[in-house]
Amino acid sequence: MYAVRYELIKECKQSGARLGRLHTPHGIIETPIFMPVGTQATVKSMTPEELKEIGSQIILSNTYHLYMRPGHELIKKAGGLHEFMQWDKPILTDSGGFQVFSLGPLRKITEEGVEFRSHLDGSRHTITPEKAVEIQTALGSDIMMAFDECAPYPADRDYVKKSLERTTRWLQRCKDAHKNTENQALFGIVQGGMYKDLREQSAREITAIDLPGYAIGGLSVGEPKDIMYDILGHTVQFLPEDKPRYLMGVGSPDDLLEGVIRGVDMFDCVLPTRIARNGTAMTSQGKVVVRNATYAEDFSPLDPECDCYTCRNYTKAYIRHLIKANEILGARLLTIHNLRFLLKLMENVRIAIHEDRLLDFKEEFFKKYYKK
Amino acid sequence: MYAVRYELIKECKQSGARLGRLHTPHGIIETPIFMPVGTQATVKSMTPEELKEIGSQIILSNTYHLYMRPGHELIKKAGGLHEFMQWDKPILTDSGGFQVFSLGPLRKITEEGVEFRSHLDGSRHTITPEKAVEIQTALGSDIMMAFDECAPYPADRDYVKKSLERTTRWLQRCKDAHKNTENQALFGIVQGGMYKDLREQSAREITAIDLPGYAIGGLSVGEPKDIMYDILGHTVQFLPEDKPRYLMGVGSPDDLLEGVIRGVDMFDCVLPTRIARNGTAMTSQGKVVVRNATYAEDFSPLDPECDCYTCRNYTKAYIRHLIKANEILGARLLTIHNLRFLLKLMENVRIAIHEDRLLDFKEEFFKKYYKK
Repeated sequence: MYAVRYELIKECKQSGARLGRLHTPHGIIETPIFMPVGTQATVKSMTPEELKEIGSQIILSNTYHLYMRPGHELIKKAGGLHEFMQWDKPILTDSGGFQVFSLGPLRKITEEGVEFRSHLDGSRHTITPEKAVEIQTALGSDIMMAFDECAPYPADRDYVKKSLERTTRWLQRCKDAHKNTENQALFGIVQGGMYKDLREQSAREITAIDLPGYAIGGLSVGEPKDIMYDILGHTVQFLPEDKPRYLMGVGSPDDLLEGVIRGVDMFDCVLPTRIARNGTAMTSQGKVVVRNATYAEDFSPLDPECDCYTCRNYTKAYIRHLIKANEILGARLLTIHNLRFLLKLMENVRIAIHEDRLLDFKEEFFKKYYKK
Repeated sequence: MYAVRYELIKECKQSGARLGRLHTPHGIIETPIFMPVGTQATVKSMTPEELKEIGSQIILSNTYHLYMRPGHELIKKAGGLHEFMQWDKPILTDSGGFQVFSLGPLRKITEEGVEFRSHLDGSRHTITPEKAVEIQTALGSDIMMAFDECAPYPADRDYVKKSLERTTRWLQRCKDAHKNTENQALFGIVQGGMYKDLREQSAREITAIDLPGYAIGGLSVGEPKDIMYDILGHTVQFLPEDKPRYLMGVGSPDDLLEGVIRGVDMFDCVLPTRIARNGTAMTSQGKVVVRNATYAEDFSPLDPECDCYTCRNYTKAYIRHLIKANEILGARLLTIHNLRFLLKLMENVRIAIHEDRLLDFKEEFFKKYYKK
């Protein structure tokens, strides 16, 4: 019995999108779902109570960052990541692969794993598939991700093929190293770049290894949107229906909707929290760059349709003042709003799937979102 | 009838400290009280609800900063500072004097007022007593402070004498300019540097102008503590018993206790919020520099005697991690704790006055605070 089990409730008759439930050791998640990112054992600026208030069902945290600081052994001593950060709902951790590959000249890839230097102090480290599982076991996440290589875009076919085949071998090593299967689930990651045949090859190899869930990596890495959606749609067909599907690193409203329509159940992205701290809100009427002078004397809320704490209490003029004055409360209020916006969007997506009208919902949503 | 009225409940038989109530347009404040500082229309990192949860009865905001950004006219259009920042309890605003005098070479003092250049964009401005009242009227604070000069330390006697006499003339101009007396109270400020006779002269001149409250300025500006307490005790005797007494810019636990014992009712200081953001906690066992490596694996709360959200939920190890990683939540958790620590200290001070045992309380408090 795996630690995580997917239950398909229904498929939208209009779009084919899936409504489901993910049963985890820390509770049940309704899918499709957006997962807020808590890179360093905190969703930037938010408390756990605030995350729950806006409807967060699960958060993501980053293995590379926690391994570097404060260290997985320390978090293990604290009783695991849930206890350390006081979050009692499910946690998904990535494998650290994406971050160490992003270190560029600071890292070297071998069959064994990746050697790299810390971005904090330059110290030398190696993450192997076994090490990634060891770290995530110490963190105690409900869902741990396999150690994979996310090939860059563009990349030539030979490189992508070699990379995806190594990713498959690494997945088998992750599975062999993963012992705590009753409390933690391991998800495999399909790669293959923008090559349809390689995506099929990777999907077939990865799903041949029996696991409680599968992710699609290597998309939203700089390619045009139409290519991304094409590759995504092509890849999903090779994934099993009875397992959750997680599209990694995606979080704009259009990518979420296009992903759900193509059969994806889980998403994560730093976009809503990052642009919040820079002074931009995602709203039902499109992006609002509240930092702009046009909002200096705008005493209306960020989004008239939003039910979040920020929109119930504060004006654009006040939030703009806070952002211009570099006040922490400004980052807080925009983060609350942006996360609530995406979580509410996914609530509405689930309702639309239930009512077999997700394509209609999409059209209505974008009519307002892009009208400006 | 003044907008603000002080009610003396009792004096501590052991120490002479005063227990009282300050009736304001936005509610009743129990004194002695510490006022958290919200410089730019926000107590850094905190929401109004969080401020209330830790027992904040009144906050202070800074006229100079709000005049510079976003501007008092904008705040007036927003419905005043209470509405702008969504704080419905009392607000005290300073006059902007202290900040413009701190601008050093960027400012020039004349009998009319102070000319200065903005620290934000270098633009030229003049604040006069009339202007300070105009700005604070637009902000709509419950208590506005007179425009005064806080003489530097050390300063020669002639300078301090001329300065305090100008401060008296400025106070009369503030009072003449202040029309909204039913909704906003004007407090005068006693100066006089470290010269006892000048303190007496200033106190007699300032209190000769009938106002609902008086402050003591120009202390805690670099002088030794024993001088500060000596001058404070000397000055308070010239202040009327039926009006509140506010010691400006003071907020360390020892200064608060020594001030209360000398008959002060109100205090403010950026200390607790500033050191919070730098990773230092004020606790019943003294200062805890949680940033230090010694707390890396300390899984106990900041202060075992504290009832705040931070101490109820998080360990030193987690807070240290957040501070080291420069995470906003670290600043939030320490700010909540430090403000709660001082507000709780003042709650205990009020209880000790009620029980005529403030000197005993002080001894018990500092036995623990300085034991390390």
